[in-house]
Amino acid sequence: MRLDVVTIFPEYLEPLNVSLVGKARARGRLDVHVHDLRNWTYDRHNTVDDTPYGGGPGMVMKTEPWGDCLDEVLADGYEAGVGAPALVVPTPSGRPFTQELAVELSERPWLVFTPARYEGIDRRVMDEYATRMPVYEVSIGDYVLAGGEAAVLVITEAVARLLPGVLGNAESHRDDSFAPGAMANLLEGPVYTKPPEWRGRGIPDVLLSGHHGKIARWRRDEALRRTTANRPDLIERCDPAVFDKKDREMLSILGWEPEPGGRFWRNSQAVEE
Amino acid sequence: MRLDVVTIFPEYLEPLNVSLVGKARARGRLDVHVHDLRNWTYDRHNTVDDTPYGGGPGMVMKTEPWGDCLDEVLADGYEAGVGAPALVVPTPSGRPFTQELAVELSERPWLVFTPARYEGIDRRVMDEYATRMPVYEVSIGDYVLAGGEAAVLVITEAVARLLPGVLGNAESHRDDSFAPGAMANLLEGPVYTKPPEWRGRGIPDVLLSGHHGKIARWRRDEALRRTTANRPDLIERCDPAVFDKKDREMLSILGWEPEPGGRFWRNSQAVEE
Repeated sequence: MRLDVVTIFPEYLEPLNVSLVGKARARGRLDVHVHDLRNWTYDRHNTVDDTPYGGGPGMVMKTEPWGDCLDEVLADGYEAGVGAPALVVPTPSGRPFTQELAVELSERPWLVFTPARYEGIDRRVMDEYATRMPVYEVSIGDYVLAGGEAAVLVITEAVARLLPGVLGNAESHRDDSFAPGAMANLLEGPVYTKPPEWRGRGIPDVLLSGHHGKIARWRRDEALRRTTANRPDLIERCDPAVFDKKDREMLSILGWEPEPGGRFWRNSQAVEE
Repeated sequence: MRLDVVTIFPEYLEPLNVSLVGKARARGRLDVHVHDLRNWTYDRHNTVDDTPYGGGPGMVMKTEPWGDCLDEVLADGYEAGVGAPALVVPTPSGRPFTQELAVELSERPWLVFTPARYEGIDRRVMDEYATRMPVYEVSIGDYVLAGGEAAVLVITEAVARLLPGVLGNAESHRDDSFAPGAMANLLEGPVYTKPPEWRGRGIPDVLLSGHHGKIARWRRDEALRRTTANRPDLIERCDPAVFDKKDREMLSILGWEPEPGGRFWRNSQAVEE
Protein backbone atom coordinates (compact mmCIF):
# COMPACT_ATOMS: atom_id res chain seq x y z
CA MET A 1 0.00 0.00 0.00
CA ARG A 2 1.20 3.49 -0.84
CA LEU A 3 0.48 6.43 1.46
CA ASP A 4 1.04 10.08 0.59
CA VAL A 5 0.58 12.82 3.17
CA VAL A 6 0.51 16.50 2.20
CA THR A 7 0.96 18.84 5.17
CA ILE A 8 2.49 22.10 6.31
CA PHE A 9 3.95 20.23 9.31
CA PRO A 10 5.90 17.31 7.81
CA GLU A 11 7.78 16.84 11.09
CA TYR A 12 4.45 16.01 12.77
CA LEU A 13 4.44 12.80 10.76
CA GLU A 14 7.68 11.51 12.34
CA PRO A 15 5.75 8.76 14.18
CA LEU A 16 5.22 7.11 10.79
CA ASN A 17 8.85 5.96 11.19
CA VAL A 18 8.17 4.35 14.57
CA SER A 19 6.56 1.23 15.97
CA LEU A 20 3.93 -0.61 13.91
CA VAL A 21 3.84 1.73 10.91
CA GLY A 22 7.64 1.93 10.90
CA LYS A 23 7.82 -1.87 10.97
CA ALA A 24 5.27 -2.17 8.13
CA ARG A 25 7.46 0.15 6.07
CA ALA A 26 10.60 -1.83 6.90
CA ARG A 27 8.80 -5.00 5.79
CA GLY A 28 7.82 -3.41 2.49
CA ARG A 29 4.08 -3.42 3.29
CA LEU A 30 3.82 0.37 3.26
CA ASP A 31 5.43 2.93 0.99
CA VAL A 32 5.05 6.31 2.73
CA HIS A 33 5.68 9.72 1.15
CA VAL A 34 5.34 12.92 3.19
CA HIS A 35 5.18 16.21 1.23
CA ASP A 36 5.55 19.77 2.49
CA LEU A 37 2.67 21.76 0.98
CA ARG A 38 4.77 24.93 1.12
CA ASN A 39 6.95 23.54 -1.68
CA TRP A 40 3.99 24.30 -3.97
CA THR A 41 3.80 28.00 -3.08
CA TYR A 42 5.45 30.63 -5.23
CA ASP A 43 5.47 33.82 -3.12
CA ARG A 44 8.24 34.74 -0.75
CA HIS A 45 6.06 34.11 2.33
CA ASN A 46 5.04 30.61 1.15
CA THR A 47 1.40 31.52 1.67
CA VAL A 48 -1.03 28.61 1.94
CA ASP A 49 -4.05 30.45 3.38
CA ASP A 50 -6.19 33.52 2.88
CA THR A 51 -9.30 35.13 4.40
CA PRO A 52 -12.64 33.38 3.88
CA TYR A 53 -15.14 34.63 1.29
CA GLY A 54 -18.15 35.96 3.14
CA GLY A 55 -16.07 37.12 6.10
CA GLY A 56 -15.68 35.65 9.55
CA PRO A 57 -12.79 34.56 11.74
CA GLY A 58 -10.02 32.20 10.74
CA MET A 59 -8.25 31.50 7.47
CA VAL A 60 -8.99 29.10 4.63
CA MET A 61 -6.35 27.02 2.81
CA LYS A 62 -5.97 28.08 -0.82
CA THR A 63 -6.84 25.99 -3.88
CA GLU A 64 -3.61 26.49 -5.87
CA PRO A 65 -0.97 24.93 -3.58
CA TRP A 66 -3.23 21.93 -2.89
CA GLY A 67 -4.15 21.48 -6.55
CA ASP A 68 -0.59 21.83 -7.83
CA CYS A 69 0.80 19.51 -5.15
CA LEU A 70 -1.89 16.83 -5.55
CA ASP A 71 -1.47 16.83 -9.33
CA GLU A 72 2.24 16.15 -8.94
CA VAL A 73 1.80 13.52 -6.23
CA LEU A 74 -0.89 11.75 -8.26
CA ALA A 75 1.19 11.85 -11.46
CA ASP A 76 4.05 10.22 -9.57
CA GLY A 77 1.91 7.36 -8.29
CA TYR A 78 0.16 6.82 -11.63
CA GLU A 79 3.55 6.62 -13.31
CA ALA A 80 4.67 4.03 -10.74
CA GLY A 81 1.52 2.01 -11.46
CA VAL A 82 0.33 2.03 -7.85
CA GLY A 83 -3.36 1.55 -8.66
CA ALA A 84 -6.45 3.64 -7.99
CA PRO A 85 -5.92 6.42 -5.44
CA ALA A 86 -8.38 7.66 -2.84
CA LEU A 87 -8.24 10.99 -1.06
CA VAL A 88 -8.60 10.91 2.73
CA VAL A 89 -9.52 14.31 4.16
CA PRO A 90 -9.54 14.51 7.96
CA THR A 91 -12.16 17.08 8.99
CA PRO A 92 -14.51 17.51 11.95
CA SER A 93 -17.30 17.83 9.34
CA GLY A 94 -16.68 14.36 7.94
CA ARG A 95 -18.42 11.09 8.57
CA PRO A 96 -17.12 9.14 11.57
CA PHE A 97 -13.97 7.10 11.10
CA THR A 98 -14.82 3.60 12.33
CA GLN A 99 -13.21 0.17 12.33
CA GLU A 100 -15.39 -0.72 9.33
CA LEU A 101 -13.98 2.22 7.42
CA ALA A 102 -10.44 1.23 8.49
CA VAL A 103 -11.07 -2.19 6.92
CA GLU A 104 -12.40 -0.57 3.73
CA LEU A 105 -9.38 1.73 3.46
CA SER A 106 -6.96 -1.13 4.18
CA GLU A 107 -8.18 -2.85 1.00
CA ARG A 108 -7.22 0.06 -1.26
CA PRO A 109 -3.77 0.23 -2.91
CA TRP A 110 -3.15 3.95 -2.40
CA LEU A 111 -4.32 6.58 0.09
CA VAL A 112 -3.54 10.30 -0.22
CA PHE A 113 -4.06 12.23 3.01
CA THR A 114 -4.72 15.99 3.07
CA PRO A 115 -4.58 17.12 6.70
CA ALA A 116 -5.61 20.78 6.88
CA ARG A 117 -4.98 23.59 9.33
CA TYR A 118 -7.01 26.73 10.11
CA GLU A 119 -10.69 26.57 9.03
CA GLY A 120 -10.01 23.90 6.40
CA ILE A 121 -9.35 23.67 2.65
CA ASP A 122 -11.23 25.63 -0.04
CA ARG A 123 -14.15 23.37 -0.95
CA ARG A 124 -13.30 23.41 -4.64
CA VAL A 125 -10.25 21.21 -4.05
CA MET A 126 -12.39 18.30 -2.82
CA ASP A 127 -15.01 18.97 -5.52
CA GLU A 128 -12.30 18.82 -8.19
CA TYR A 129 -10.68 15.54 -7.12
CA ALA A 130 -14.04 13.93 -6.34
CA THR A 131 -14.64 13.88 -10.12
CA ARG A 132 -11.66 11.52 -10.47
CA MET A 133 -11.47 9.37 -7.33
CA PRO A 134 -13.23 8.52 -4.06
CA VAL A 135 -12.89 11.27 -1.46
CA TYR A 136 -13.27 10.15 2.15
CA GLU A 137 -14.00 13.10 4.42
CA VAL A 138 -13.68 11.60 7.87
CA SER A 139 -13.76 12.70 11.48
CA ILE A 140 -11.91 10.67 14.10
CA GLY A 141 -14.14 11.92 16.93
CA ASP A 142 -16.24 14.69 18.44
CA TYR A 143 -13.45 16.99 19.56
CA VAL A 144 -11.55 19.84 17.95
CA LEU A 145 -7.90 19.49 16.96
CA ALA A 146 -5.47 22.15 15.73
CA GLY A 147 -5.07 20.32 12.43
CA GLY A 148 -5.55 17.03 10.65
CA GLU A 149 -2.07 15.59 11.22
CA ALA A 150 -2.92 13.76 14.45
CA ALA A 151 -5.92 12.25 12.63
CA VAL A 152 -3.60 11.02 9.86
CA LEU A 153 -1.50 9.20 12.46
CA VAL A 154 -4.62 7.61 13.93
CA ILE A 155 -6.08 6.53 10.58
CA THR A 156 -2.72 5.29 9.28
CA GLU A 157 -2.14 3.17 12.37
CA ALA A 158 -5.67 1.71 12.33
CA VAL A 159 -5.26 0.83 8.64
CA ALA A 160 -1.65 -0.40 8.78
CA ARG A 161 -2.31 -2.98 11.49
CA LEU A 162 -4.91 -4.61 9.23
CA LEU A 163 -2.44 -5.18 6.38
CA PRO A 164 -1.32 -8.81 5.95
CA GLY A 165 1.93 -9.63 7.71
CA VAL A 166 2.09 -6.48 9.84
CA LEU A 167 0.88 -7.69 13.25
CA GLY A 168 3.16 -10.08 15.13
CA ASN A 169 2.10 -12.79 17.55
CA ALA A 170 2.25 -10.55 20.58
CA GLU A 171 -0.54 -8.50 19.05
CA SER A 172 -3.82 -9.94 17.90
CA HIS A 173 -7.03 -8.92 16.16
CA ARG A 174 -9.21 -11.56 17.64
CA ASP A 175 -10.56 -10.08 20.85
CA ASP A 176 -10.15 -6.43 19.90
CA SER A 177 -12.85 -4.09 21.04
CA PHE A 178 -14.80 -3.22 17.84
CA ALA A 179 -13.50 -6.28 15.98
CA PRO A 180 -16.04 -8.62 14.38
CA GLY A 181 -16.85 -11.88 16.20
CA ALA A 182 -18.37 -12.96 19.50
CA MET A 183 -17.26 -9.83 21.32
CA ALA A 184 -18.46 -7.49 18.54
CA ASN A 185 -19.80 -4.30 20.05
CA LEU A 186 -18.56 -5.15 23.54
CA LEU A 187 -15.62 -3.45 25.25
CA GLU A 188 -12.94 -5.69 26.68
CA GLY A 189 -12.90 -6.12 30.44
CA PRO A 190 -9.86 -6.03 32.77
CA VAL A 191 -6.67 -7.99 32.10
CA TYR A 192 -4.04 -9.30 34.53
CA THR A 193 -0.58 -10.82 34.41
CA LYS A 194 2.07 -11.97 36.90
CA PRO A 195 2.75 -11.50 39.76
CA PRO A 196 -0.40 -12.90 41.44
CA GLU A 197 -0.12 -10.27 44.16
CA TRP A 198 1.05 -6.65 43.76
CA ARG A 199 0.84 -4.03 46.49
CA GLY A 200 -1.66 -6.19 48.33
CA ARG A 201 -3.88 -6.60 45.28
CA GLY A 202 -4.67 -10.10 44.00
CA ILE A 203 -6.34 -11.28 40.85
CA PRO A 204 -9.81 -12.82 40.39
CA ASP A 205 -9.70 -16.50 41.47
CA VAL A 206 -11.49 -17.65 38.33
CA LEU A 207 -8.46 -16.71 36.20
CA LEU A 208 -6.37 -19.28 38.14
CA SER A 209 -9.06 -22.00 37.96
CA GLY A 210 -7.92 -23.45 34.62
CA HIS A 211 -11.63 -23.81 33.75
CA HIS A 212 -11.87 -22.39 30.23
CA GLY A 213 -15.65 -22.15 30.19
CA LYS A 214 -15.80 -20.25 33.48
CA ILE A 215 -13.00 -17.94 32.36
CA ALA A 216 -14.76 -17.17 29.07
CA ARG A 217 -18.00 -16.50 30.97
CA TRP A 218 -16.23 -14.21 33.46
CA ARG A 219 -14.62 -12.27 30.62
CA ARG A 220 -17.93 -11.86 28.89
CA ASP A 221 -19.62 -10.69 32.10
CA GLU A 222 -16.82 -8.15 32.64
CA ALA A 223 -17.16 -6.99 29.02
CA LEU A 224 -20.90 -6.49 29.57
CA ARG A 225 -20.19 -4.63 32.82
CA ARG A 226 -17.66 -2.33 31.15
CA THR A 227 -19.79 -1.72 28.07
CA THR A 228 -22.98 -0.87 29.97
CA ALA A 229 -20.98 1.54 32.15
CA ASN A 230 -18.90 3.31 29.47
CA ARG A 231 -20.79 2.78 26.22
CA PRO A 232 -24.51 2.20 26.73
CA ASP A 233 -24.92 3.25 23.08
CA LEU A 234 -23.12 0.06 21.99
CA ILE A 235 -25.53 -2.14 23.97
CA GLU A 236 -28.47 -0.32 22.45
CA ARG A 237 -27.08 -0.96 18.96
CA CYS A 238 -26.51 -4.69 19.60
CA ASP A 239 -28.58 -7.20 17.74
CA PRO A 240 -30.45 -8.98 20.60
CA ALA A 241 -29.49 -12.30 19.00
CA VAL A 242 -25.87 -11.82 20.16
CA PHE A 243 -26.95 -12.13 23.80
CA ASP A 244 -27.33 -15.65 25.17
CA LYS A 245 -29.21 -16.64 28.34
CA LYS A 246 -26.23 -15.91 30.63
CA ASP A 247 -25.69 -12.54 28.94
CA ARG A 248 -29.31 -11.66 29.59
CA GLU A 249 -28.96 -12.62 33.25
CA MET A 250 -25.89 -10.40 33.55
CA LEU A 251 -27.58 -7.53 31.72
CA SER A 252 -30.54 -7.87 34.08
CA ILE A 253 -28.21 -7.66 37.10
CA LEU A 254 -26.71 -4.53 35.52
CA GLY A 255 -30.16 -3.01 35.20
CA TRP A 256 -30.88 -3.67 31.54
CA GLU A 257 -34.00 -5.42 30.32
CA PRO A 258 -35.21 -6.27 26.83
CA GLU A 259 -38.02 -4.11 25.60
CA PRO A 260 -40.96 -5.97 24.07
CA GLY A 261 -39.59 -5.34 20.54
CA GLY A 262 -36.37 -7.21 21.34
CA ARG A 263 -33.66 -4.53 21.75
CA PHE A 264 -32.13 -3.82 25.17
CA TRP A 265 -32.75 -0.59 27.00
CA ARG A 266 -31.57 0.59 30.37
CA ASN A 267 -34.02 -0.26 33.10
CA SER A 268 -33.92 2.98 35.06
CA GLN A 269 -35.89 1.41 37.92
CA ALA A 270 -33.13 -1.11 38.54
CA VAL A 271 -30.53 1.67 38.41
CA GLU A 272 -32.34 3.72 41.01
CA GLU A 273 -32.47 0.85 43.53
CA MET B 1 -0.21 22.85 32.87
CA ARG B 2 2.12 19.93 33.35
CA LEU B 3 1.93 16.83 31.16
CA ASP B 4 3.74 13.57 31.77
CA VAL B 5 3.64 10.74 29.25
CA VAL B 6 4.90 7.25 30.09
CA THR B 7 5.46 5.08 27.02
CA ILE B 8 7.66 2.40 25.48
CA PHE B 9 7.82 4.54 22.31
CA PRO B 10 9.05 7.96 23.48
CA GLU B 11 9.98 8.90 19.89
CA TYR B 12 6.29 8.60 18.95
CA LEU B 13 5.70 11.71 21.05
CA GLU B 14 7.98 13.90 18.88
CA PRO B 15 4.95 15.85 17.56
CA LEU B 16 4.65 17.36 21.05
CA ASN B 17 7.58 19.56 19.95
CA VAL B 18 5.76 20.77 16.83
CA SER B 19 3.02 23.20 15.89
CA LEU B 20 0.43 24.18 18.48
CA VAL B 21 1.68 22.04 21.37
CA GLY B 22 5.27 23.03 20.59
CA LYS B 23 4.25 26.70 20.64
CA ALA B 24 2.36 26.27 23.91
CA ARG B 25 5.53 24.81 25.42
CA ALA B 26 7.68 27.64 24.05
CA ARG B 27 5.24 30.14 25.59
CA GLY B 28 5.46 28.41 28.97
CA ARG B 29 1.84 27.23 28.96
CA LEU B 30 2.77 23.58 28.91
CA ASP B 31 5.53 21.71 30.72
CA VAL B 32 5.87 18.33 28.98
CA HIS B 33 7.83 15.32 30.30
CA VAL B 34 8.09 12.11 28.27
CA HIS B 35 9.36 9.01 30.11
CA ASP B 36 10.55 5.69 28.69
CA LEU B 37 8.78 2.95 30.68
CA ARG B 38 11.68 0.58 30.01
CA ASN B 39 13.84 2.68 32.35
CA TRP B 40 11.80 1.11 35.15
CA THR B 41 12.56 -2.49 34.22
CA TYR B 42 15.35 -4.42 35.92
CA ASP B 43 15.93 -7.50 33.76
CA ARG B 44 18.33 -7.61 30.84
CA HIS B 45 15.49 -7.80 28.28
CA ASN B 46 13.70 -4.75 29.74
CA THR B 47 10.49 -6.75 29.94
CA VAL B 48 7.29 -4.73 30.26
CA ASP B 49 4.75 -7.45 29.39
CA ASP B 50 3.81 -11.03 30.22
CA THR B 51 1.10 -13.57 29.29
CA PRO B 52 -2.45 -12.93 30.54
CA TYR B 53 -3.85 -14.80 33.53
CA GLY B 54 -6.61 -17.06 32.30
CA GLY B 55 -4.93 -17.61 28.94
CA GLY B 56 -5.70 -16.18 25.54
CA PRO B 57 -3.80 -14.34 22.84
CA GLY B 58 -1.74 -11.20 23.33
CA MET B 59 0.33 -9.86 26.19
CA VAL B 60 -0.51 -7.73 29.23
CA MET B 61 1.66 -4.88 30.53
CA LYS B 62 3.09 -5.65 33.97
CA THR B 63 2.24 -3.86 37.20
CA GLU B 64 5.78 -3.27 38.49
CA PRO B 65 7.30 -1.04 35.76
CA TRP B 66 4.14 1.08 35.64
CA GLY B 67 3.88 1.35 39.42
CA ASP B 68 7.56 2.17 39.94
CA CYS B 69 7.58 4.71 37.13
CA LEU B 70 4.34 6.44 38.13
CA ASP B 71 5.50 6.69 41.76
CA GLU B 72 8.66 8.48 40.66
CA VAL B 73 6.87 10.74 38.16
CA LEU B 74 4.26 11.65 40.75
CA ALA B 75 6.86 12.31 43.45
CA ASP B 76 8.65 14.70 41.09
CA GLY B 77 5.49 16.70 40.36
CA TYR B 78 4.37 16.78 44.00
CA GLU B 79 7.81 18.08 44.98
CA ALA B 80 7.54 20.79 42.33
CA GLY B 81 4.12 21.76 43.74
CA VAL B 82 2.30 21.28 40.43
CA GLY B 83 -1.10 20.60 42.01
CA ALA B 84 -3.47 17.65 41.89
CA PRO B 85 -2.65 15.08 39.19
CA ALA B 86 -5.08 13.08 37.09
CA LEU B 87 -4.28 9.89 35.22
CA VAL B 88 -5.39 9.75 31.59
CA VAL B 89 -5.50 6.19 30.26
CA PRO B 90 -6.21 5.85 26.53
CA THR B 91 -8.06 2.57 25.96
CA PRO B 92 -10.71 1.34 23.53
CA SER B 93 -12.67 0.26 26.63
CA GLY B 94 -12.88 3.80 27.97
CA ARG B 95 -15.63 6.36 27.82
CA PRO B 96 -15.64 8.51 24.70
CA PHE B 97 -13.25 11.43 24.59
CA THR B 98 -15.38 14.47 23.67
CA GLN B 99 -14.92 18.22 23.44
CA GLU B 100 -16.62 18.49 26.85
CA LEU B 101 -14.03 16.19 28.35
CA ALA B 102 -11.26 18.19 26.62
CA VAL B 103 -12.58 21.29 28.40
CA GLU B 104 -12.68 19.44 31.74
CA LEU B 105 -9.11 18.20 31.33
CA SER B 106 -7.88 21.65 30.23
CA GLU B 107 -8.91 22.99 33.64
CA ARG B 108 -6.65 20.60 35.56
CA PRO B 109 -3.08 21.53 36.49
CA TRP B 110 -1.46 18.19 35.74
CA LEU B 111 -2.22 15.25 33.46
CA VAL B 112 -0.29 11.98 33.49
CA PHE B 113 -0.82 9.87 30.35
CA THR B 114 -0.29 6.09 30.31
CA PRO B 115 -0.53 4.94 26.68
CA ALA B 116 -0.39 1.14 26.59
CA ARG B 117 0.57 -1.42 23.98
CA TYR B 118 -0.51 -5.06 23.52
CA GLU B 119 -3.74 -6.01 25.32
CA GLY B 120 -3.45 -3.18 27.85
CA ILE B 121 -2.13 -2.63 31.38
CA ASP B 122 -2.73 -4.98 34.32
CA ARG B 123 -5.96 -3.71 35.89
CA ARG B 124 -4.41 -3.38 39.34
CA VAL B 125 -2.38 -0.35 38.22
CA MET B 126 -5.51 1.71 37.53
CA ASP B 127 -7.19 0.34 40.69
CA GLU B 128 -4.17 1.41 42.75
CA TYR B 129 -3.91 5.01 41.47
CA ALA B 130 -7.69 5.46 41.45
CA THR B 131 -7.48 5.46 45.26
CA ARG B 132 -5.38 8.64 45.10
CA MET B 133 -6.50 10.62 42.03
CA PRO B 134 -9.07 10.80 39.24
CA VAL B 135 -8.42 8.19 36.54
CA TYR B 136 -9.86 9.03 33.12
CA GLU B 137 -10.07 5.93 30.94
CA VAL B 138 -10.93 7.35 27.55
CA SER B 139 -11.40 6.17 23.99
CA ILE B 140 -10.84 8.60 21.12
CA GLY B 141 -13.10 6.63 18.76
CA ASP B 142 -14.49 3.28 17.60
CA TYR B 143 -11.42 1.92 15.87
CA VAL B 144 -8.45 -0.15 16.99
CA LEU B 145 -4.96 1.35 17.23
CA ALA B 146 -1.65 -0.39 17.84
CA GLY B 147 -1.15 1.59 21.05
CA GLY B 148 -2.25 4.62 23.03
CA GLU B 149 0.41 7.04 21.78
CA ALA B 150 -1.62 8.42 18.86
CA ALA B 151 -4.48 8.98 21.30
CA VAL B 152 -2.15 10.96 23.58
CA LEU B 153 -1.28 13.25 20.67
CA VAL B 154 -4.97 13.74 19.92
CA ILE B 155 -5.99 14.44 23.52
CA THR B 156 -3.00 16.69 24.16
CA GLU B 157 -3.74 18.79 21.08
CA ALA B 158 -7.44 19.09 21.88
CA VAL B 159 -6.60 20.16 25.45
CA ALA B 160 -3.65 22.46 24.62
CA ARG B 161 -5.61 24.60 22.19
CA LEU B 162 -8.07 25.42 24.98
CA LEU B 163 -5.38 26.82 27.29
CA PRO B 164 -5.38 30.62 27.60
CA GLY B 165 -2.96 32.35 25.23
CA VAL B 166 -2.28 29.33 23.02
CA LEU B 167 -4.46 29.99 19.96
CA GLY B 168 -3.45 32.90 17.71
CA ASN B 169 -5.79 35.05 15.64
CA ALA B 170 -5.57 32.83 12.58
CA GLU B 171 -7.23 30.11 14.60
CA SER B 172 -10.48 30.52 16.43
CA HIS B 173 -12.78 28.63 18.77
CA ARG B 174 -15.93 30.43 17.83
CA ASP B 175 -17.36 28.49 14.91
CA ASP B 176 -15.67 25.17 15.66
CA SER B 177 -17.69 22.08 15.00
CA PHE B 178 -18.61 20.76 18.50
CA ALA B 179 -17.95 24.15 20.17
CA PRO B 180 -20.75 25.62 22.30
CA GLY B 181 -22.87 28.42 20.75
CA ALA B 182 -25.29 28.86 17.88
CA MET B 183 -23.64 26.17 15.77
CA ALA B 184 -23.47 23.70 18.66
CA ASN B 185 -24.03 20.17 17.35
CA LEU B 186 -23.82 21.24 13.70
CA LEU B 187 -20.92 20.47 11.40
CA GLU B 188 -19.40 23.39 9.52
CA GLY B 189 -20.25 23.69 5.84
CA PRO B 190 -17.85 24.46 2.95
CA VAL B 191 -15.36 27.35 3.04
CA TYR B 192 -13.81 29.32 0.18
CA THR B 193 -11.04 31.84 -0.34
CA LYS B 194 -9.44 33.66 -3.28
CA PRO B 195 -9.25 33.33 -6.25
CA PRO B 196 -12.95 33.65 -7.22
CA GLU B 197 -12.42 31.15 -10.01
CA TRP B 198 -10.15 28.08 -9.98
CA ARG B 199 -10.08 25.42 -12.68
CA GLY B 200 -13.43 26.65 -13.93
CA ARG B 201 -14.99 26.46 -10.45
CA GLY B 202 -16.55 29.59 -8.96
CA ILE B 203 -17.82 30.28 -5.47
CA PRO B 204 -21.43 30.69 -4.28
CA ASP B 205 -22.70 34.19 -5.24
CA VAL B 206 -24.08 34.83 -1.78
CA LEU B 207 -20.55 34.94 -0.33
CA LEU B 208 -19.78 37.98 -2.56
CA SER B 209 -23.06 39.74 -1.74
CA GLY B 210 -21.80 41.56 1.33
CA HIS B 211 -25.18 40.80 2.93
CA HIS B 212 -24.27 39.50 6.39
CA GLY B 213 -27.72 38.11 7.16
CA LYS B 214 -27.91 36.15 3.92
CA ILE B 215 -24.36 34.84 4.37
CA ALA B 216 -25.11 33.69 7.91
CA ARG B 217 -28.29 31.97 6.68
CA TRP B 218 -26.46 30.27 3.82
CA ARG B 219 -23.78 29.02 6.21
CA ARG B 220 -26.38 27.64 8.55
CA ASP B 221 -28.23 25.91 5.73
CA GLU B 222 -24.97 24.34 4.55
CA ALA B 223 -24.20 23.26 8.11
CA LEU B 224 -27.62 21.61 8.31
CA ARG B 225 -27.04 19.95 4.93
CA ARG B 226 -23.64 18.60 5.99
CA THR B 227 -24.83 17.47 9.41
CA THR B 228 -27.90 15.61 8.17
CA ALA B 229 -25.72 13.86 5.55
CA ASN B 230 -22.71 12.92 7.69
CA ARG B 231 -23.98 12.94 11.27
CA PRO B 232 -27.72 12.31 11.54
CA ASP B 233 -27.05 11.33 15.16
CA LEU B 234 -26.13 14.95 15.96
CA ILE B 235 -29.46 16.23 14.57
CA GLU B 236 -31.33 13.62 16.60
CA ARG B 237 -29.53 14.77 19.74
CA CYS B 238 -30.27 18.49 19.13
CA ASP B 239 -32.61 20.29 21.45
CA PRO B 240 -35.45 21.29 19.09
CA ALA B 241 -35.28 24.81 20.58
CA VAL B 242 -32.01 25.44 18.71
CA PHE B 243 -33.83 25.27 15.36
CA ASP B 244 -35.54 28.47 14.21
CA LYS B 245 -38.23 28.73 11.53
CA LYS B 246 -35.71 28.88 8.65
CA ASP B 247 -33.81 25.90 10.09
CA ARG B 248 -37.05 23.92 10.17
CA GLU B 249 -37.75 24.83 6.55
CA MET B 250 -34.29 23.65 5.53
CA LEU B 251 -34.60 20.46 7.56
CA SER B 252 -37.93 19.78 5.88
CA ILE B 253 -36.30 20.22 2.44
CA LEU B 254 -33.61 17.76 3.58
CA GLY B 255 -36.29 15.25 4.52
CA TRP B 256 -36.41 15.77 8.28
CA GLU B 257 -39.62 16.50 10.17
CA PRO B 258 -40.32 17.03 13.85
CA GLU B 259 -42.01 14.15 15.54
CA PRO B 260 -45.02 15.04 17.68
CA GLY B 261 -42.84 15.00 20.84
CA GLY B 262 -40.59 17.77 19.48
CA ARG B 263 -37.33 16.07 18.45
CA PHE B 264 -36.38 15.74 14.79
CA TRP B 265 -36.32 12.44 13.00
CA ARG B 266 -35.54 11.56 9.42
CA ASN B 267 -38.64 11.53 7.28
CA SER B 268 -37.96 8.47 5.16
CA GLN B 269 -40.90 9.27 2.88
CA ALA B 270 -39.30 12.53 1.80
CA VAL B 271 -35.99 10.76 1.27
CA GLU B 272 -37.56 8.15 -1.01
CA GLU B 273 -39.03 10.77 -3.36
